[in-house]
Amino acid sequence: MFDQIERGQAVGKAEFDAAASELRTSLILTQQELRKADCPVLIIFGGVDGAGKSELAGLLNEWMDPRWIVTRAYGPRTRDEKSRPEFWRYWVDIPPRGQIGVYLSAWYSEPLVDRVYGRLKKRKFERELSRIGEFERCLADDGALILKFWMHLDKAQQKRRLRKLEKHPARHWQVGKQDWRNWENYGRFVEVAERIIERTDAPYAPWRLVDGGDAGYRSLAVLRTVRQAIGDHLAGRTSSRTRPPPAVQLTVAENGGEDGPATAESHGGPASRPPLAQVDLGASVTKPLYARKLPKLRRRLNELYQRAKNQEMATMLVFEGWDAAGKGGTIRRVTAALDARDYRIHPIAAPNDWENAHHYLWRFWQRIPRDGKFAIFDRSWYGRVMVERVEGFASEPEWSRAFREIREFEDQIVEHGTLLMKFWLHIDADEQARRFRDRAETPYKSWKLTDEDWRNRDRWREYEAAVNEMVTRTSTAAAPWHLVPFNDKRHGRLEVLTRLCEAMERKLG
Amino acid sequence: MFDQIERGQAVGKAEFDAAASELRTSLILTQQELRKADCPVLIIFGGVDGAGKSELAGLLNEWMDPRWIVTRAYGPRTRDEKSRPEFWRYWVDIPPRGQIGVYLSAWYSEPLVDRVYGRLKKRKFERELSRIGEFERCLADDGALILKFWMHLDKAQQKRRLRKLEKHPARHWQVGKQDWRNWENYGRFVEVAERIIERTDAPYAPWRLVDGGDAGYRSLAVLRTVRQAIGDHLAGRTSSRTRPPPAVQLTVAENGGEDGPATAESHGGPASRPPLAQVDLGASVTKPLYARKLPKLRRRLNELYQRAKNQEMATMLVFEGWDAAGKGGTIRRVTAALDARDYRIHPIAAPNDWENAHHYLWRFWQRIPRDGKFAIFDRSWYGRVMVERVEGFASEPEWSRAFREIREFEDQIVEHGTLLMKFWLHIDADEQARRFRDRAETPYKSWKLTDEDWRNRDRWREYEAAVNEMVTRTSTAAAPWHLVPFNDKRHGRLEVLTRLCEAMERKLG
Repeated sequence: MFDQIERGQAVGKAEFDAAASELRTSLILTQQELRKADCPVLIIFGGVDGAGKSELAGLLNEWMDPRWIVTRAYGPRTRDEKSRPEFWRYWVDIPPRGQIGVYLSAWYSEPLVDRVYGRLKKRKFERELSRIGEFERCLADDGALILKFWMHLDKAQQKRRLRKLEKHPARHWQVGKQDWRNWENYGRFVEVAERIIERTDAPYAPWRLVDGGDAGYRSLAVLRTVRQAIGDHLAGRTSSRTRPPPAVQLTVAENGGEDGPATAESHGGPASRPPLAQVDLGASVTKPLYARKLPKLRRRLNELYQRAKNQEMATMLVFEGWDAAGKGGTIRRVTAALDARDYRIHPIAAPNDWENAHHYLWRFWQRIPRDGKFAIFDRSWYGRVMVERVEGFASEPEWSRAFREIREFEDQIVEHGTLLMKFWLHIDADEQARRFRDRAETPYKSWKLTDEDWRNRDRWREYEAAVNEMVTRTSTAAAPWHLVPFNDKRHGRLEVLTRLCEAMERKLG
Repeated sequence: MFDQIERGQAVGKAEFDAAASELRTSLILTQQELRKADCPVLIIFGGVDGAGKSELAGLLNEWMDPRWIVTRAYGPRTRDEKSRPEFWRYWVDIPPRGQIGVYLSAWYSEPLVDRVYGRLKKRKFERELSRIGEFERCLADDGALILKFWMHLDKAQQKRRLRKLEKHPARHWQVGKQDWRNWENYGRFVEVAERIIERTDAPYAPWRLVDGGDAGYRSLAVLRTVRQAIGDHLAGRTSSRTRPPPAVQLTVAENGGEDGPATAESHGGPASRPPLAQVDLGASVTKPLYARKLPKLRRRLNELYQRAKNQEMATMLVFEGWDAAGKGGTIRRVTAALDARDYRIHPIAAPNDWENAHHYLWRFWQRIPRDGKFAIFDRSWYGRVMVERVEGFASEPEWSRAFREIREFEDQIVEHGTLLMKFWLHIDADEQARRFRDRAETPYKSWKLTDEDWRNRDRWREYEAAVNEMVTRTSTAAAPWHLVPFNDKRHGRLEVLTRLCEAMERKLG
């Protein structure tokens, strides 16, 4: 692969200076255009040490306005980073729309180095590469432009370069023992790098191989590509933000739609009956039984919470459901068994402007609990495929790819060792009407009822179809949906607590 | 102090239920009003374990809309919290305007417990109490309503309460060995608590002592106070946001103004000459000398950076200065000596809406570096007393109290062991005009020049007076201002690097 790189090209000082002024100006103008656009740009430099990665990052910052550039490199994982899913540290750092993120090796560093030194088994390595693909595709789908440069040097060139750096009065510290050890493993590095490039080269995030032998040449080559690619991207992009929302047409894809079947194990049954129709809304519990069972469940949950804390297992609970189904009351029954230091409740409303400037999953990545803690979501990322879909806040391509994005997001959480549970609190339209009336009539409840609640009721059928599709397509073996009947709140609460305890017991072993 | 609490009052179930419905309704309405207001509310529960702190937090969440309430309790400090200034964890958690923060013991817990068990010396303890006062005053000045309840039980009551909790099937886990140990030290707890209350009782954050013996009584007492206090606060408040900005009248308070003299040690001199007038703008360095010195300084800085990393010392650098003074170029000369994994540059522009919903210092608390790291600010919190003052974005009371707020903010950073350096890059108006023209004429520089730059120039005198006052009032022994002449950029950069190296050497010992 690397022998196809055009070698030995050089650009002299005079030629460089002549080109620089024009290139600088057009880079700046391009950046100004980008500032007004609704997409972020990610520029990733991978490759051989000494081939100019940091110099290029420096040049980008010097030639453009550094206030709108975020430059990131990642070292060994801190405790904080280790206690969250692997890609957490990258997700929280993605650039907002209109800005540029410059990354030195970033998510390519660990797979490369760990694989070369045998710390990463082949299967895990391949999974890492798939994960990178998912991450980049997810951002690209959202409008991000992703530019990846693999800076190359051959073995002799690298040796010369390291020698030269060692002698440089201000740069010698950049070369350590590890760099020479890496150099000795040059062949193995090339082998692993080829596999990485092959697997992570994609139309939405193509690799560009660059000969890093000559500073002038590589700078012009990379920066010209950057300028051109951003310009093309902006020119070719019709803003998805300004596009009118499409007419809502809900059809439930029983088998999970184009991107493969999703298992809905917790509510199997004849494929012809949608999930919500299978919920037995007649279930109920008497008051005395409830009063007897609730404290027992609370105690059991409390014991499990203490064990989870000792074993450093994180727990994420998602509560979705119809308006007035009883989310708030249920959450309080859960938190009654926990210590306030160890949980956070995240009520999810419409995103603010800063959140809107990022991928919609970004704000949820910010809320991933660290090991041993609880994060409880009162509504969640599922808004994307419910309210945003039905009300037209998300376009059809946006919400339809969200099913896959959400599965991939949740896979990473579960893989980290976190317990993730998703509850749909189900009631029927009559019960909702009864509760709305009750709210309207009870002084301290009437605030809960807004005109919007009544409006949403009018779209019950559309929401129902959206929920059915959501459940079908995002129930996975690792994180199935739990549909819980809530026409009787007592029954519903006990059911949620029971399932939570059972799941914790299973996971804690 | 505690014997003045009215004791033995009780509210029966019937009386409680009768009062509850009305109280709930008015609390909800009050919260709705608050949502529209521009101030946050902080409710702090301190006091004896078992006196109902968590129950009250639970009730507030049940009776009001929990989506707009943030409830926080703090455990032993995590590594993450230890590697930042002490109040960092509280600052990042303050509620936004329109919302309520409910705190269990929070910043009162450590001083109380640590003092009782002798882990906190008297002098340090008293300083902690002053710090709490500063923190609460800072929030109150910004419009926050602060309600503090000290929940009291006498020794016999507490014993009964702990016994009862131990027997409760779902709550027994709340009582551990430490609770009984605390009970045995009851007398000492009361003594320390009295001192805490005495020292932190203030008009803007008064303590209310409540008998926690009866659940019905204490709930009604506290919640009625909450309702009343929020209502009064909203009624009495003329929004500072809607008030028109006052006419700008700049007078330099040479001696630090009403809140005490600030030392301006690095630029002492006749009090009659303002600091900026003392800067020698003629200083310059030849190109060859610059070329010889720069790499040496870079190497020296790199060595110091490595030592700072090993010793886990954090560094915060603030760059302020006239437009076109050379902030960006200087920052790049600093970062050239650092590894990209260990620094973050924070370009500070106008706050976004979410930042605006908090105290103006909140966004800077979010950016405090952890131990061993660099945080570099391209403009900073000093915007409050410069651009916000001169352009009228901050009202006179807002910017004039900012001098003290900033000193207290910086004190905490320095006290934590962080090196904090503040540079003012100084040029004169002629030099600025020359650079503006150069920018206008150089294709790749012209983007840097906007109409706003020319407008700001018209207000040079006003900015100059504001800067002089800022330097005078915020130069402290711990964090003096460094005024660096930048008419000659080469000289300026070398000067910044030299002073940085010297300060790091001193601090690292």
